[in-house]
Amino acid sequence: MGMFSSDIKSMDDLFVHTLRDIYYAEQQITKALPKMISQATNPELKGGFEQHLKETQGQVQRLEQVFKMHGVEAKGVTCPAIDGIIKEANEVAGEVADKAVLDAALVAAAQAVEHYEITRYGSLIAWAKQLGRQDCASVLQQNLDEEKATDKKLTAMAESKVNQQAV
Amino acid sequence: MGMFSSDIKSMDDLFVHTLRDIYYAEQQITKALPKMISQATNPELKGGFEQHLKETQGQVQRLEQVFKMHGVEAKGVTCPAIDGIIKEANEVAGEVADKAVLDAALVAAAQAVEHYEITRYGSLIAWAKQLGRQDCASVLQQNLDEEKATDKKLTAMAESKVNQQAV
Repeated sequence: MGMFSSDIKSMDDLFVHTLRDIYYAEQQITKALPKMISQATNPELKGGFEQHLKETQGQVQRLEQVFKMHGVEAKGVTCPAIDGIIKEANEVAGEVADKAVLDAALVAAAQAVEHYEITRYGSLIAWAKQLGRQDCASVLQQNLDEEKATDKKLTAMAESKVNQQAV
Repeated sequence: MGMFSSDIKSMDDLFVHTLRDIYYAEQQITKALPKMISQATNPELKGGFEQHLKETQGQVQRLEQVFKMHGVEAKGVTCPAIDGIIKEANEVAGEVADKAVLDAALVAAAQAVEHYEITRYGSLIAWAKQLGRQDCASVLQQNLDEEKATDKKLTAMAESKVNQQAV
């Protein structure tokens, strides 16, 4: 939620603004994931990131669908939060020497991204319902369900393999 | 996870580094909350933020306890993620004109902070257990439980009152 904040006068404005915030965020994530894929060593983690990249591309398309349904232009607004989260992820990806420890750090970085998306979709869905846009809420719910599933998968992967290999 | 990333060679290093990341984050949150309290209009939301400020101060003390238990110096490392999340929260807090819409935006901003903490504590607890530090994990679990409870409380507050008043 950056440069256009002063234009927020109604709940509808806040909804559209936050939609543009998460649209920007999802696009930044599609740019960040290829680097994380190349840095990951554990094959299961690498595969998980590859699958999540495809999923994220689908999520961007769903957001474009919501923009269309709501009759507003599909565009992003700079979001300092996701920029900061990805900056941290990139720093860690490039700096940890041990490959197994790097995998553990990559899982944590990916989960920070997931949790940002989970919280934003949660707010957007609640606001869409309040605004009487159950149709938009339903599409956004699909993205939220995917993010939650990815977060759970990352936890399971970390606890069963990644962290054990790193210790 | 910022400037000291190049020092991360083991899981223990990653654990200590991330402990310093969340220590910095909690301190930034104690600085950000008073502004959010003064901006909130709904009395329940204002009270919720006040209670969370007290809780956060207790969480900082628990982190200091974990540093001590683990035999390392209690200090923070700059965390671009929380800086970005708080920057967004501040921008919205200062820019939304309508008070009821501002309350809805403040809840969303606070939940973004909560989710960042939830994900970091989740990783820290998993790593502490892997490192055989069940004692540290137990103290960190208390912070995680509080963050999760706060997030649920914010969702309930948003859905029952704040969002309805804003539409």
